[in-house]
Amino acid sequence: MFDSGLGGLTVVRELMAAMGGEDIVYLGDSARVPYGIKSLETVRRFALSDAAYLMRFSPKLLVVACNTASAAAIDVLQERIDVDVVDVIGPSAAAAVGRTDRPIGVIATEATISSGAYQRTIERLAPGREVLVAACPLLVPIVEEGRGEDDPIVLHVLSDYLHRLQRARPGAMILGCTHYPLLSGAIGKLMGPDVPLINSGQAAAEEVHRRLVDTHLQSPRSAGGTLRCFTTDNPRRFALLAERFGGRKIDDVMFVGTDELECITEPTT
Amino acid sequence: MFDSGLGGLTVVRELMAAMGGEDIVYLGDSARVPYGIKSLETVRRFALSDAAYLMRFSPKLLVVACNTASAAAIDVLQERIDVDVVDVIGPSAAAAVGRTDRPIGVIATEATISSGAYQRTIERLAPGREVLVAACPLLVPIVEEGRGEDDPIVLHVLSDYLHRLQRARPGAMILGCTHYPLLSGAIGKLMGPDVPLINSGQAAAEEVHRRLVDTHLQSPRSAGGTLRCFTTDNPRRFALLAERFGGRKIDDVMFVGTDELECITEPTT
Repeated sequence: MFDSGLGGLTVVRELMAAMGGEDIVYLGDSARVPYGIKSLETVRRFALSDAAYLMRFSPKLLVVACNTASAAAIDVLQERIDVDVVDVIGPSAAAAVGRTDRPIGVIATEATISSGAYQRTIERLAPGREVLVAACPLLVPIVEEGRGEDDPIVLHVLSDYLHRLQRARPGAMILGCTHYPLLSGAIGKLMGPDVPLINSGQAAAEEVHRRLVDTHLQSPRSAGGTLRCFTTDNPRRFALLAERFGGRKIDDVMFVGTDELECITEPTT
Repeated sequence: MFDSGLGGLTVVRELMAAMGGEDIVYLGDSARVPYGIKSLETVRRFALSDAAYLMRFSPKLLVVACNTASAAAIDVLQERIDVDVVDVIGPSAAAAVGRTDRPIGVIATEATISSGAYQRTIERLAPGREVLVAACPLLVPIVEEGRGEDDPIVLHVLSDYLHRLQRARPGAMILGCTHYPLLSGAIGKLMGPDVPLINSGQAAAEEVHRRLVDTHLQSPRSAGGTLRCFTTDNPRRFALLAERFGGRKIDDVMFVGTDELECITEPTT
């Protein structure tokens, strides 16, 4: 599994809760974080280098635990990577469509929204369904800064981004960035109890489970799975911040340089 | 000249105003932006690869137009690069010390503040001088998002970061990040007219001028200098946003991949 940084650990958390016997190798590209303010070409290149690195571990499945990387690179990853790839956008869109017949809201990074990936995926699953989107560029840095859900600045920024969606009252709203579950309490309060929030990490974890069962690749264990983390920035800093995202202490963090990632030529096995 | 992204164009602006005859090659590392939330080891590696790339153009002087890169890498750059290197921290610290005998305020990124570079530089120039610092992690993403100085969120975030400095009333305050001049109006209003703001780009431009005169390397022209820009992300996007930072339209923008930067082995000539 890879992500631009720490956000994907919210996906790890869901996955470990649902499939405690699976061994996970997580790569957080904290040296090049964030992806969501960068062009899709650049994010695609980063995603390919992240995936190529992970192929060294001969995974049975690759999870793109970052919405921006999913938006930019899912097609090229599925084409070039020699194992099944699960992204966070497809499962979240399907979960939202299954949850409501009314318009669907999506909040995400600038790159994810402007890629149109959610809009296209929902259109394919439910033709003609209205999709209401809002790009929220400050939410990732706010979460990374460690501000809590009752911080007045968090509430101010959320109100600014969500006011149009609050009035539109969609039938469900996708948290289209793996950082956003850390703000789901505040987002839920602003949107009200009638707007269910779709956690893209949870949706992806359910999809991983389905795929592993379908392909008979699931672990026979229900507990005892391991988590090894790699980061392109400082491992101590990663370990320090990881608990907020992953919901548990993470000790096994190793460094891998972006120079090593960039040197891998072709992301195939 | 290099910077983590667009902020350094505020230094270009000052340099072109003061020395209109100089030719400038600018590298903005927009694919790996921001530097200010990353570890000093990572920023040092990035800065070395940026500098090594620029050495291809055989510059007469290298300007580190990024406070975080200055804090992380000025020593190693001066050691390994074969031309004179001007950073933004030394000149800003000197300008502040020259401006007041009272305590000096510094606002900057998390990495710059926690490196202690401003604190050490001021201590060297004016032993015992009190330095009041505030890390302001959200200001770079706020400026990059394009929010203006009268945006309520900008004022809310600034008040949050500056309230301790407002009470302390330093004799001068350094804007220790090349993004911050875009918020200098709002910062000035909060700090009041008795606290002069030191623009680190302006201080660096003055230092460049001094060095070029001292070494007899200044251009004989007073106008007609060229500006060529390189970016590691999308050049169209860079050109689109550049005007806000550089104060003029910038057309000549080319792409260079981070894979190319990372492949340069040793940043010497």
